[in-house]
This record gives sequence, structure tokens and C-alpha cells, in this order.
Amino acid sequence: MSDTLMRAALDELGAALAKVDDRLIDAACRMIADARRIGVYGCGREALQIKGFAMRLFHLGLPVGVVGDVTMPALGHGDVLLVTSGPGETSTVLALMRTARAAGTTNLLLTAEPESGAAMLADFVLVIPAQTMAGDQGEGQVLPMGSVYEGALFVLFEVMVLKLRTLTGATGEAMRARHTNME
Amino acid sequence: MSDTLMRAALDELGAALAKVDDRLIDAACRMIADARRIGVYGCGREALQIKGFAMRLFHLGLPVGVVGDVTMPALGHGDVLLVTSGPGETSTVLALMRTARAAGTTNLLLTAEPESGAAMLADFVLVIPAQTMAGDQGEGQVLPMGSVYEGALFVLFEVMVLKLRTLTGATGEAMRARHTNME
Amino acid sequence: MSDTLMRAALDELGAALAKVDDRLIDAACRMIADARRIGVYGCGREALQIKGFAMRLFHLGLPVGVVGDVTMPALGHGDVLLVTSGPGETSTVLALMRTARAAGTTNLLLTAEPESGAAMLADFVLVIPAQTMAGDQGEGQVLPMGSVYEGALFVLFEVMVLKLRTLTGATGEAMRARHTNME
Amino acid sequence: MSDTLMRAALDELGAALAKVDDRLIDAACRMIADARRIGVYGCGREALQIKGFAMRLFHLGLPVGVVGDVTMPALGHGDVLLVTSGPGETSTVLALMRTARAAGTTNLLLTAEPESGAAMLADFVLVIPAQTMAGDQGEGQVLPMGSVYEGALFVLFEVMVLKLRTLTGATGEAMRARHTNME
Repeated sequence: MSDTLMRAALDELGAALAKVDDRLIDAACRMIADARRIGVYGCGREALQIKGFAMRLFHLGLPVGVVGDVTMPALGHGDVLLVTSGPGETSTVLALMRTARAAGTTNLLLTAEPESGAAMLADFVLVIPAQTMAGDQGEGQVLPMGSVYEGALFVLFEVMVLKLRTLTGATGEAMRARHTNME
Repeated sequence: MSDTLMRAALDELGAALAKVDDRLIDAACRMIADARRIGVYGCGREALQIKGFAMRLFHLGLPVGVVGDVTMPALGHGDVLLVTSGPGETSTVLALMRTARAAGTTNLLLTAEPESGAAMLADFVLVIPAQTMAGDQGEGQVLPMGSVYEGALFVLFEVMVLKLRTLTGATGEAMRARHTNME
Repeated sequence: MSDTLMRAALDELGAALAKVDDRLIDAACRMIADARRIGVYGCGREALQIKGFAMRLFHLGLPVGVVGDVTMPALGHGDVLLVTSGPGETSTVLALMRTARAAGTTNLLLTAEPESGAAMLADFVLVIPAQTMAGDQGEGQVLPMGSVYEGALFVLFEVMVLKLRTLTGATGEAMRARHTNME
Repeated sequence: MSDTLMRAALDELGAALAKVDDRLIDAACRMIADARRIGVYGCGREALQIKGFAMRLFHLGLPVGVVGDVTMPALGHGDVLLVTSGPGETSTVLALMRTARAAGTTNLLLTAEPESGAAMLADFVLVIPAQTMAGDQGEGQVLPMGSVYEGALFVLFEVMVLKLRTLTGATGEAMRARHTNME
């Protein structure tokens, strides 16, 4: 029975991912590879997935910080604030995007809602057309609440890591060497 | 091209998940549902996935805390320390499992390595036979480093949430009501 | 020489603390003791101090959560959002205070700036008239940037813990028993 | 009455700080300034204070990471692991110090217990002879549990920042410019 559920969950992720625009993924990767500095932010379980991506950006040797960490740098011109907001209306995301915009920083948004407030503040929007917390009506799907969006984030970020590995020329060996031994 | 990579990534997750023992998943869910208190811990990107599961346990109304958070309670008899360590040798995981054991707490371990030091300290082991950071030789797979293990954790936890929803009788509405509006 | 600097640092903290209104401290403690739930939030090094206070509230047995943690509950009527913003204009603090206000939650603010945007959104303001990051002109003081405000927060919170111990009747023994052994 | 408590709290901090060896503070600062990389770690409320110090090291332009953050680098020869453990026996601190030692990293320890297990693993020990969580007998002092040690950490770190500002030549302006605007 777990097997059936796992298969259904993977299918739901696959269905959401199939609708993401391939050219936009490539463009987002180039923005990240070219940024002077990258800051990442998200709320709830989206925060966890974008932090996982940030760890891989760090492994790739890219200059990334996590909003809220004590080593997060200031962002300005030439920098990218990479945020995720499935519903596109989380208040702290909107606040940080406004601050970034005022500082001349590029807002790169991942969202399920291309008409949302966050999308209005973004310089570049990568849409994952998946159910989020806000859209959950409690029926039909195996994955509850925002889990389709969050799981799709995980897989999308993995694919972006592969593309960024090519863009940056980072070797697998170099990536593993950057992983912390303090754990 | 992204589409091919995503499909390959999902297939790698599916292959790892297909080898997880269904009865052990059910048993782990019962241990979590019956615990007086649950604490969770993991390192690196595994920490992020287990925190995501902890948020869903919180949504389910279960008494869960995250090791390192300021509201993490003391654990003792009747409690479960749920840890993930893909390679099974991360030093802080071993340290906490020893402390938990001394306090009479049940150690529930997720790992890729059933012969590891962590497995020796566990009361119950749920094996996900997937490549981890430690096992990455840089070849063959689409998902690098520990990503297969971490992505499999995500999907496995989702399936466990579904089973725990049945075990606890939590409604989708109740789960959504517990989600924070402070974000 | 360290001794002279330490003495000067403690004197700067003492000078800031001497200007905090005693009756307002008592009133803030009563609000916290009477809250159905308490959420805490702050930015940068202020976040660290308010999390330290949250751990003591947890030790006291009070129902506290930290914004951003996976176990942070939803806030509504009867709840208190306790925030610190020295300069009173940090954008995520303002965003969360607006969300809290819309949810009927009481905003309890610690700040150095009683005329700030945060103060306008607060139901109750406790002013610590100390230099913050925003006010640092680089002269005169031993403690740089926002350190006077942050150190004053530490001491003020300690005094509030003592008052809350009386208000809640928590014993030292009970507080120590609630401290986690998972560390 | 708050005034009397605050005064007493500051006096308790001052008494603990007066017993810290001035020459050892200077030596610790030189180790930090000369490190190739610095990692910081602590448990509970000590973690919060050492993270506050890490933010100031970041402001100073020093290469610092926080154990547990996704951007924490690997440590090896020439690096310093700066840890605090008031009681000197917290299990994850001991685990990380052993890992650091095996990697050729210098263990710099802050503790109240010079005869503790952590002290045995340290290359350099800076003793703050203050009551910790473990030593709290519930009597006599105004500051409960480990608060004297934790508050003394705050002030000691501030003094170390002043000394490191001289050692590194960082200006106040440069420090403020490094502070994040994403908050």
C-alpha cells in the first residue's frame, strides 16, 4: 500500500513539473550563475527546500547567503534575491522583495501564482503550477496542503543544480570537498 | 531537456523508495503516533527534510520538537527521538542517540546504512537503500551527492503523514488550522 | 585593559536600562503571562536575544513559539506577538505586525524608537532608549552598532523572567526540568 | 524594583567577567584573527550568544560560518572551531570537537569548567568562572540557570569585537556596510 501511495505522490510531482517552462529554468540558472551575490528566502516548508538548494549553490562555489542567517550579506545592484512563495502573498516575502527592489537587487521568484502580489514585485517569475497551502481544498490529491509545490521545488532545484554544474564548471569532487565535516 | 532530467530524478527516487519495507513504515508510524513526545534531528540537507516532516507532525497535533530549537523539550521514557543519518556515522547524531538511550528514550533511525554506528544505537531502523553523500562516487546517477536519499526522505515522510492522518484521526481542516499565519 | 572595557560596556547597558519605565515592564510581563499563546520575532542579533527569552518562557511553562520555527502555531485573538525592532522600521517586523493585527493578535513591541513605524502598529510599546544599528554614528561609545540595545535586551529579559516566575509560580526546579537534554 | 534587579544582574555579570584572564582574551582574539576559517557552535542559549559574535565576525570581514547553517564550510588545518560549553559536557559539542581535532582544526573553547571533557579536547581554553545550567542550585543569585554565563559571554564577545577591530583594521563604516539589508 505504501508503494501505491509513493507512486501516486511521484506522479503528482511529475505532473506539476511537466508544466514548468524549460527555457525559463535555463534563464533562471543563468541569472543565478551570473549574480554577484545570491540571497534566498521562503516561508514554512518552502524555506526548507530553498535552503537545501542554497547548500548546493554553496557546494558549487557560488556566493550564497540565507536570509535570517547571521552571515547573510547586504544585497544591492548585481545581486539576486531568490524567493519562493507558492501562494505568492506571504507577507515577509513581499516585504523583502520590496526592500530588495529598492536596493537595486533582482527579484527572482518561484511561485504557483503568476498573478500574485509577489509576481508583481518580481523581475523574473518561474511558475510551478502546483497546489499550494492556500489552494488546498482537501480533496483528490495524495499530497496534502502545499506538498506538491514543495516536492516539485525539491526536484526542480536538483535539475537546476545539474545545469549550474555545467554553467559553473564545478566538478563533483570540488562540490563534495566543500561539504562541511562539522556534523 | 529539463523534462528528461526531472523524469530521471523521479525514477531514481522511485527506485530507492520501492525498496523500503512497507511493514516497517507502518510500525514507525505507530511508534510516532504513540509517543509521549517526539524530537527530530538530522544533519545538512537531511535536517531540512526531517524538519519538514516535523511541521506536518505539528499540523497533525502531535507533540513534536526540533533539536536545536529553543522550545525543544527534554526527552525521557515514552518519548521517541526520530533521527536521520544517511551514512549512519554523523557524529552529532551518534552523540544525541547515546544521550537519548541513557534517558530511556526510543531511538527511531532512518538511514541508508543498516550496519552503521547509528544503526547499532537505534531501537528501530527504517532503511532507505539509496546513495548518500558518503557513497557518492560521482558517476551514473542524475541526482548527485545525497540527493536520492534526501528526496526519498521527502516522499517517504509524505506517505507517513497520510498514514498518521489515519492513525490520529486528524482532519485536513484541523491540519490547515494549525498552520501558522505568521509568515 | 579588558577590565576597563567590560566595565564601560556594563555601564552603557546600565545607563540604557535605567531609562526603561518600571511600570511598563510590569505591564508587559502581565500581558505575556495572560496570553493564550505567545509568538516572538526579531531581526539579526535582536532575534538571538528574543529567542533566548523565548527559551526561558518555555522553561516557565508558557505557550511560546518562535516565528520561523516549524512548530510555530497560528496566532489570533487572545495571543501576543512579542517583537523587537530597535530602529522600529525593519520590514519583516512591520509585515508580521500587520498580519498579527489583522488576526486580532496583540502586538507587544520592544524598540528604541517610540515614533517609528513599528510603534504605530503596536498595541503596547516598551521603549529601551539605547543606540541601535540605525543610530550608530561611530563615536563615543564602547559598544558598537546595535550592541547597547541588544545587551540591554538581554538584561531586561532576565528581569522579566524573574517577574514572570513570580506571576506564574514556576519553581526553579520545574524550569530546570523543562530544559532539553538533547544537546 | 526593576532597577534594583537590573543593577544586581549587571553586578553578577561584572563579577564573573572580572575573573576572566586578560592575556587569554588577547590570545583568543589573535587566534580568531589569524584563522583561515572560523566555525562557531554552542547549545541552547549559549548558541544564541556565539551566533551573535559570529555576526560581528562577519561584519569585521572575517571568514566565519555557523555549524548547522547550510553555508558552513568544511574545517581543516589552519581553521578554528570556536565553541562554548558552560558545563563543558554537552554531547554534541564534544562530538564536534573530536571531529575537528581529527581534521587538524584548532579547538578554541569557552567554558566555566576547566576540568571538563570539553576542556580536555580543547587546544585553548578561555574560562568564564560563572554559574551555568549545570551548576544552578536555585539560590542566592538574581540570574537563574545559566544566565550569568550567557550574559558574561555577551559582554566578553563585545570586548573581543573591539580588540578584533584593532587587529583587523576594520572601520566602523565597513562593518555597518556588511550588515544585511534583508530584514
